[in-house]
Amino acid sequence: MKEEKTISSVGEFELIRSCFSSSVPSDVTGITVGLGDDGAVLDVPRTQELVVSTDTLVEGIHFSSDDDPYLLGRKALRVNLSDLAAMGAQPRWYLLSLSLPPSTPLSWVTEFSRGLKEDGERYKVALTGGDTTGSKGCRIMTITMMGYLGKGRALCRSGLQLGDRLFVTGTLGDATLGLAHHLGRMTLSDSEDAIYLMQRHQLPEPRIAFGMGLIDAALAHGAIDLSDGLVADLRHLCTASKVGAEVDVEKIPLSHAARRQLEAHDGDLLTQILTGGEDYELLFAVSPGCLGAVANLADQMGLAITEIGVVTAGSSVNFNLNGTPMRLGSGGWTHF
Amino acid sequence: MKEEKTISSVGEFELIRSCFSSSVPSDVTGITVGLGDDGAVLDVPRTQELVVSTDTLVEGIHFSSDDDPYLLGRKALRVNLSDLAAMGAQPRWYLLSLSLPPSTPLSWVTEFSRGLKEDGERYKVALTGGDTTGSKGCRIMTITMMGYLGKGRALCRSGLQLGDRLFVTGTLGDATLGLAHHLGRMTLSDSEDAIYLMQRHQLPEPRIAFGMGLIDAALAHGAIDLSDGLVADLRHLCTASKVGAEVDVEKIPLSHAARRQLEAHDGDLLTQILTGGEDYELLFAVSPGCLGAVANLADQMGLAITEIGVVTAGSSVNFNLNGTPMRLGSGGWTHF
Repeated sequence: MKEEKTISSVGEFELIRSCFSSSVPSDVTGITVGLGDDGAVLDVPRTQELVVSTDTLVEGIHFSSDDDPYLLGRKALRVNLSDLAAMGAQPRWYLLSLSLPPSTPLSWVTEFSRGLKEDGERYKVALTGGDTTGSKGCRIMTITMMGYLGKGRALCRSGLQLGDRLFVTGTLGDATLGLAHHLGRMTLSDSEDAIYLMQRHQLPEPRIAFGMGLIDAALAHGAIDLSDGLVADLRHLCTASKVGAEVDVEKIPLSHAARRQLEAHDGDLLTQILTGGEDYELLFAVSPGCLGAVANLADQMGLAITEIGVVTAGSSVNFNLNGTPMRLGSGGWTHF
Repeated sequence: MKEEKTISSVGEFELIRSCFSSSVPSDVTGITVGLGDDGAVLDVPRTQELVVSTDTLVEGIHFSSDDDPYLLGRKALRVNLSDLAAMGAQPRWYLLSLSLPPSTPLSWVTEFSRGLKEDGERYKVALTGGDTTGSKGCRIMTITMMGYLGKGRALCRSGLQLGDRLFVTGTLGDATLGLAHHLGRMTLSDSEDAIYLMQRHQLPEPRIAFGMGLIDAALAHGAIDLSDGLVADLRHLCTASKVGAEVDVEKIPLSHAARRQLEAHDGDLLTQILTGGEDYELLFAVSPGCLGAVANLADQMGLAITEIGVVTAGSSVNFNLNGTPMRLGSGGWTHF
């Protein structure tokens, strides 16, 4: 059996050179100083504000050691792009910190960087710096995503107003069902459904253009990306805005695959769909006067959006299934 | 024995609220949206360019589990500030990603955040976002530091020119001797020397004002902060600038404490001083016509600077001790 080459056999600087030095798509502008200096120097257009967000993925928590590193590279970029989408920003540049045990196979890093590069090209974001360190245990990666938007136009969590309608993009619950299947916690009889749901978990689609469209036309009062699950993220949004919400659970958009699982299993799956994270769809609030305009925006982009509830006074966030309140506990992912 | 409270007993969101929500010094400007949204929104002044850098500290590699978390918080901030100092930038805002095992004592995080806050006030930088995750093994923290400088004025590694004189701030080798003492690899008979050298390792002083002074007066052709050691970092600088260098080792500035160790031990300590990292002093290149002006700048700031060598043609970087070339190997820290 051929012994696999590890990163310790090539060394830190050669690893950076061979895997990460060419991760700048040709059409990304604003890089005065990129990779290889003490810091990156970036030119934020003068009418714009910088938007920056960071997310860490930890082996054993966010991914497992035998997950495909190519897909992981793509996902690491996408979850960060999703944060910028939720602000309405145009993503442009990113930093990568990678902490790896010296025994990490070189091919793992090559594949991870191939995924990063491919989606960097797709979303037109450039790697402009980072840090590479050893690790005593697991593999850890932190991406810091930077972009910009017009001054004073950010889609904040705190902007919700009474009577706003709550919308989501796409379909919810797919990622959590895909993950359950991947971990062997749920068996999907239909292999096409399994592939579809797994892919929704592995390759979320950041709603960048739609987020930018919402702020361009000033259509939304606030937004969040659904990383922790609908229940937890709606609570985050309502807490920040000091409002409550009523959600009609039967209106929540489900994919055909998710609907088939819901019909095949008992009702418990519904709670999982409401509380499971990692869909990375946008949840946003629209004033009643803008419903037509927001529908037109979604049509224009070919993106499905669905009204699922309304912003209310007070602080309680209620999920009603055909008019009957559901009991959901606190819901959502928490790390400790 | 009283059982210590862990972070899992308070939970992720309460941990963030109690430890990190008030880390914004009152005099830091430009924060349109800070902590608690999907991303931070920051206003880079229109004549300025964004400068951004990231550094990760890993338990078992950069620090040990019984290191003082208060000092660690301060150091984590300072090593990142040092990167911005090496570009000549004014630091303003930072992000923190923290990955911790659920068994981490709450007091560890409280102390870590106290150190961060204290030095945040000192250097006038504000925490504007981040991520908190669990970890299966060690504690890991990544700080992303942001600031700005005048357009086109960054102190890059690639700007060195033939005949430039090489300077360093402060004294070199203190941190590596302090660390050797801390790890029990070297015994210091003088306890005051031990305290001094340990402190140089634990609390490096980022040379922010001096870096900014260098670009304000356009006095330097390039700079780097000495994190990997003089030998490795000078090579990084020369490689980026496609030049060589000659260093007169006897000119390298040493503290009284380091000089006493050098005299007490055999010559091998000199190699350690030249290759040991974490001094976080600046190494920079000045054209012969600016020597007077740079000396005045240093005097004005009360900072010692020392000329240690010259930029040469070719690509070889030589260290000469009283005219005799030293053999130093590749030198410097590498992670794999």
